[in-house]
Amino acid sequence: MAFKPLHDRVLVRRVESDEKTKGGLIIPESAKEKPAEGEIIAIGAGARDEAGARIALDVAAGDRVLFGKWSGTEVTVDGEELLIMKESDILGVIS
Amino acid sequence: MAFKPLHDRVLVRRVESDEKTKGGLIIPESAKEKPAEGEIIAIGAGARDEAGARIALDVAAGDRVLFGKWSGTEVTVDGEELLIMKESDILGVIS
Amino acid sequence: MAFKPLHDRVLVRRVESDEKTKGGLIIPESAKEKPAEGEIIAIGAGARDEAGARIALDVAAGDRVLFGKWSGTEVTVDGEELLIMKESDILGVIS
Amino acid sequence: MAFKPLHDRVLVRRVESDEKTKGGLIIPESAKEKPAEGEIIAIGAGARDEAGARIALDVAAGDRVLFGKWSGTEVTVDGEELLIMKESDILGVIS
Amino acid sequence: MAFKPLHDRVLVRRVESDEKTKGGLIIPESAKEKPAEGEIIAIGAGARDEAGARIALDVAAGDRVLFGKWSGTEVTVDGEELLIMKESDILGVIS
Amino acid sequence: MAFKPLHDRVLVRRVESDEKTKGGLIIPESAKEKPAEGEIIAIGAGARDEAGARIALDVAAGDRVLFGKWSGTEVTVDGEELLIMKESDILGVIS
Amino acid sequence: MAFKPLHDRVLVRRVESDEKTKGGLIIPESAKEKPAEGEIIAIGAGARDEAGARIALDVAAGDRVLFGKWSGTEVTVDGEELLIMKESDILGVIS
Repeated sequence: MAFKPLHDRVLVRRVESDEKTKGGLIIPESAKEKPAEGEIIAIGAGARDEAGARIALDVAAGDRVLFGKWSGTEVTVDGEELLIMKESDILGVIS
Repeated sequence: MAFKPLHDRVLVRRVESDEKTKGGLIIPESAKEKPAEGEIIAIGAGARDEAGARIALDVAAGDRVLFGKWSGTEVTVDGEELLIMKESDILGVIS
Repeated sequence: MAFKPLHDRVLVRRVESDEKTKGGLIIPESAKEKPAEGEIIAIGAGARDEAGARIALDVAAGDRVLFGKWSGTEVTVDGEELLIMKESDILGVIS
Repeated sequence: MAFKPLHDRVLVRRVESDEKTKGGLIIPESAKEKPAEGEIIAIGAGARDEAGARIALDVAAGDRVLFGKWSGTEVTVDGEELLIMKESDILGVIS
Repeated sequence: MAFKPLHDRVLVRRVESDEKTKGGLIIPESAKEKPAEGEIIAIGAGARDEAGARIALDVAAGDRVLFGKWSGTEVTVDGEELLIMKESDILGVIS
Repeated sequence: MAFKPLHDRVLVRRVESDEKTKGGLIIPESAKEKPAEGEIIAIGAGARDEAGARIALDVAAGDRVLFGKWSGTEVTVDGEELLIMKESDILGVIS
Repeated sequence: MAFKPLHDRVLVRRVESDEKTKGGLIIPESAKEKPAEGEIIAIGAGARDEAGARIALDVAAGDRVLFGKWSGTEVTVDGEELLIMKESDILGVIS
């Protein structure tokens, strides 16, 4: 099954904050205001600029990203809890 | 009878959330904040960009989509309960 | 007498909701949140895009339309109660 | 004496609502929410679009118009009570 | 001394409302909601449109204007009480 | 040391209101709503228009300006209290 | 490990306010409303203008900057407390 987010939306799998990332970024459970970490599963085709042309997204499937803790809408795809959010909710990419 | 949504609106038939989709997406009845699932029945010709040109919609009649649970306006067409909503209320397409 | 709506406004004659339309669309009296049905009597010349050019309306005089129940401003023309509203208040066209 | 409204403003003489217009439009005194009727006395040169060019007004001096009952600012010119309002406050032209 | 208003601002000398203008416009002291009358002393070079080009003002030094009673910021220049306001606060020009 | 304001910001040294300017502009201590006077110390490179091009500022270092009494953010540079504000907070230039 | 901020965001290391900078800028601990000082660690590729083109940032990694005391979102990278904020939250560059 595939889920294709519309426009500038992305589908994200949340990464548990007690999981230490390869890069060493740690977000302690107690830090309530800190952003959450996740992995991009699928991206939209992009919103359109004023002339109607597509603006490609800056993130790609597979990217590890940080996003605001309360960003996105929860959805269950193939029994897995995922998040649909706008690209603008993503703070940056961990590489 | 035909109903043609105006501009960037779409006409959607809601799919009951206890109906398991082909792709395996399940939205449990109890999940109140989860998006709803539906099928696109008809689409508008598109809104216009700043230069007055049409922006074609990214969804088509027949698409299975997710949308915010409280999106759209209810309307009865040929005795059937349908929803009119803006394309921007649609989160993504299930394929 | 003629009344010419300005810019992107339209003049609409409300159709009573107990009147069954040719297409079979029924809006029961009890459905308070449902959109209302009407007929376009006259349309404006269109708003202007950013470059000052006219954007022609997507509806025409004679169209049967659905619009938000509380849309528009009431006006009496030749003793008849009509509504002036913006084209954006119209949800779609019944054909 | 002349008063020249600025930009997209117009100068309007209110027509008493008990005055029956040539076209037969009647607005009863009791209808508090109904729009008011008036005659355009003078118009501005037009606002400017994003490129700085003028957008000519769609109404002209002499036009009979409907406008929101509470639109405009009252001003006394040569002892007569008139209204200065934006063209966008005008709902349409009676002809 | 000279004071040069910035962008689309103008410097205005308020004209007492009991002063009858040449054109015969009278604004009685008791009319609290009526606009005030003044004379343009100095004007800015104009705001910029989206492409960064200047939009020249529609008023010039010496113009007699009407403006909203509460518009502008008071300033004392050479011992005289003046007002700095945006051109958009000016309703029209008396000529 | 140098402080370079970003975009359309300027660095301003407040001039005490009991200091009579060369031009004779006086702002009495008691006038609470009156604008404040200052001198531009440094300016930003300018904001960008919609096409991404710089819009140069209309003020320059050394200009005597009036600005809203509560405009800007206080900062201490080399032991001196200065203000960082947007160019749009400046009402005009005294010359 | 690298963290790449998205669009017009920057990654900033906060500089303690009791640390006197080379340039002599001092922000006393007691000054609650004063801006904070920091060093840019990483910058985004820039937001896009209306035509979809990138707008390069005006700050670069290594820049000493002032920003609003409450700007940005805290994040822990490699055990260090950093801030992700928008370039527009930065008041200016100390050089």
